[in-house]
Amino acid sequence: MPQGRPPSQDQFLAEPVAGNRLLDRRIFLKQGIALLGAGSLAAGALTPAGAANLPDTPPWMQFPGAPLSGYGSPAKYESKVTRTLLQSQPGTTGSGASRTPLEALDGMITPSGLHFERHHSGVPDIDPAKHRLLIHGLVKRPLIFTVDALLSYPMVSRLYFLECSGNSRPMYGATPPTLTCGQVHGMVSCSEWTGVPLRLLLEEAGADPSALWLLAEGADSAAMSRSVPMAKAMDDAFLALYQNGERLRPENGYPVRLFLPGYEGNMNVKWLRRLKVMPTPTMTKDETSKYTDLQADGKALMFTFPMAVKSVITRPSPGVTLQGPGLYEVSGIAWSGHGAITKVEVSADGGQTWAEAVLSAPVLPRALTRFRTAWKWNGAPSVLKSRAADETGTVQPTRDALVAAHGTNVSYHYNAIQAWQVEANGEVKNVYA
Amino acid sequence: MPQGRPPSQDQFLAEPVAGNRLLDRRIFLKQGIALLGAGSLAAGALTPAGAANLPDTPPWMQFPGAPLSGYGSPAKYESKVTRTLLQSQPGTTGSGASRTPLEALDGMITPSGLHFERHHSGVPDIDPAKHRLLIHGLVKRPLIFTVDALLSYPMVSRLYFLECSGNSRPMYGATPPTLTCGQVHGMVSCSEWTGVPLRLLLEEAGADPSALWLLAEGADSAAMSRSVPMAKAMDDAFLALYQNGERLRPENGYPVRLFLPGYEGNMNVKWLRRLKVMPTPTMTKDETSKYTDLQADGKALMFTFPMAVKSVITRPSPGVTLQGPGLYEVSGIAWSGHGAITKVEVSADGGQTWAEAVLSAPVLPRALTRFRTAWKWNGAPSVLKSRAADETGTVQPTRDALVAAHGTNVSYHYNAIQAWQVEANGEVKNVYA
Repeated sequence: MPQGRPPSQDQFLAEPVAGNRLLDRRIFLKQGIALLGAGSLAAGALTPAGAANLPDTPPWMQFPGAPLSGYGSPAKYESKVTRTLLQSQPGTTGSGASRTPLEALDGMITPSGLHFERHHSGVPDIDPAKHRLLIHGLVKRPLIFTVDALLSYPMVSRLYFLECSGNSRPMYGATPPTLTCGQVHGMVSCSEWTGVPLRLLLEEAGADPSALWLLAEGADSAAMSRSVPMAKAMDDAFLALYQNGERLRPENGYPVRLFLPGYEGNMNVKWLRRLKVMPTPTMTKDETSKYTDLQADGKALMFTFPMAVKSVITRPSPGVTLQGPGLYEVSGIAWSGHGAITKVEVSADGGQTWAEAVLSAPVLPRALTRFRTAWKWNGAPSVLKSRAADETGTVQPTRDALVAAHGTNVSYHYNAIQAWQVEANGEVKNVYA
Repeated sequence: MPQGRPPSQDQFLAEPVAGNRLLDRRIFLKQGIALLGAGSLAAGALTPAGAANLPDTPPWMQFPGAPLSGYGSPAKYESKVTRTLLQSQPGTTGSGASRTPLEALDGMITPSGLHFERHHSGVPDIDPAKHRLLIHGLVKRPLIFTVDALLSYPMVSRLYFLECSGNSRPMYGATPPTLTCGQVHGMVSCSEWTGVPLRLLLEEAGADPSALWLLAEGADSAAMSRSVPMAKAMDDAFLALYQNGERLRPENGYPVRLFLPGYEGNMNVKWLRRLKVMPTPTMTKDETSKYTDLQADGKALMFTFPMAVKSVITRPSPGVTLQGPGLYEVSGIAWSGHGAITKVEVSADGGQTWAEAVLSAPVLPRALTRFRTAWKWNGAPSVLKSRAADETGTVQPTRDALVAAHGTNVSYHYNAIQAWQVEANGEVKNVYA
């Protein structure tokens, strides 16, 4: 059966709303179909020669398929879709991070198997029957909880992103890193988390109302520890026991982790074994030697907890190449530790003009938000950018503005606008533009 | 370190709002803490003898843990949490269903590895580079799509449940099945699905506006086929390419499935290879020999597409035993193919009195909704029930009412209120009550 492109590919009736042919977002709405001419969308669709002929019966229709299974896995054809492993401390055991392959994903949920990792001494193999959580310090009665006890408490479920404070760090470098979107920005993921509100347990222990801090300690062999403001602990913090419906994955803190919505990933202490109610921050090794922001003048910012508003285009992006001129969806993710995303704008002319993107429902506070816009690429080199705003009114900064404010010695909290250059051959490059 | 129950377990200040000590749902709200006395919640919490003493350093803190991994898996301690495999057609190859273990999960998302399965001839091993989708019939120009072409279209992402029409079938039996919650009701799951609106492709092919039906055919060796109303196809139907962020799992239709929000699972044709625009339904083998509702009078209802409003308590439930009198969370899921859940009520006295449960945000149309209520069990035998209502005002029926209306010859669309009897020893039994 001969195959070819439909002849009507260029009959595109929708008018661009921003430079370099970014299209009106109404084409994503039901009533927007009228904007489109027939044949406008079928980039790569094939017209069969003999009108109603079926393709030949493929081999997989000729015999029964695989049986039912107890626990499923991705298709073998997707075996290259994995986390990218980057040991950040060579010579250490189990210290490092892996990145979510953002460019291969769509929607707002990150499958748990691809959730980014950051470990300071590997993933401990914790027997949940033997794990204990201690709440002590400035409390009326110290308590030890078994995992079974925690599982019997009233719970909450919420969809939240989690982002490592060091996400996007390569972008502080003098030249743009030649990495994929996930390798640069993939230390952000989003799951549905379910667990016990921390305030219930702190009330239970009789925490001193004048105590302003908690020390949270993990049961890994680094005893990874952070100081947490009591105000956050009594607000929306919880002890997560489930991730995307099932019990936590080992690399995400099984059997229990602290969850602080919107706060930098490291504070969401995994494998939680101890919460100590304190009058002051503890100044642990993990918040003094790391997770502080060294500024250009040699001073360092500490305790910059909420992750700032941010977005990135995941498709197209480096390695996700365009196959010739035509209509493309420009899709990406946006998020803010300060609340809900209110707007994402996309530019196809390097930031001279911007078009508002469609946000996929539900748009939830402190969760990834998927944005989409349509672009009719004419084959000329183009620079794509996305720019997010959150409900506090904060807009994602340019890289120049971020560097001017904080310098390039800092390793954390990079949230600048990302520019991807599409070359004439369809390849996509990371650029500072 | 000696361990014991806290002495203040019975100091529970919240007043019951329904019979047999169901508690006010405000205890799930932030301002509800004042309702609770200290020590009221810590069923199973352990008081350490030496106040601020830490538990002994566990073995997993004494050496570095496991390294980063490309694609993660559940903890080995959770290896019993699997789908339950039930071959429904003995002697056939690859025909049958597996159930989601609802009683082991929490939240609204079902992890893709535990999403229920229903196959009519096993899971085909489809090479996405060779798969084709044909749109033909009453169209101006038939089109064949590659998977890559489908991936280039504008997409939508939404959280939706999927329920097999035959879910809960054992409940039509004369005696209550002695199965777990998931084994009875676990052919319902919920994912984030991402794909291409079907109306875009039908417009592209120039579907005849007077055509009222589609035939949808799968690429399994059963060529599983269903008739779909064109009105649904042009409304919110889409071709799903991603599930929970990553590409579809093989058992859920990789590389592409039809998705019809709220409609019975079988119509959401997996491994989609053909859509034929038709003037009438096709009366395929799958919608005549199966997926019709045989009534008491020998007649059968066909084309009862949307799944009706339904709920079930997942915890406690058979096999999830209570450990003595005390405070428990009663948690479950509710859903409706007709829209959003507006209310779930829980009874602890067999349906004499009801208390309104808390619904976990976001509450989305045609998605699972997690509900929760708190119950102070006094150790006496008790019958727990949940009763959901949706935005059309429809309330879940009793089993008696459902059977009176449809008889017990029917195999599909069971949505009655489920009763679980909690015995004095904490065990939970399925009862018709």
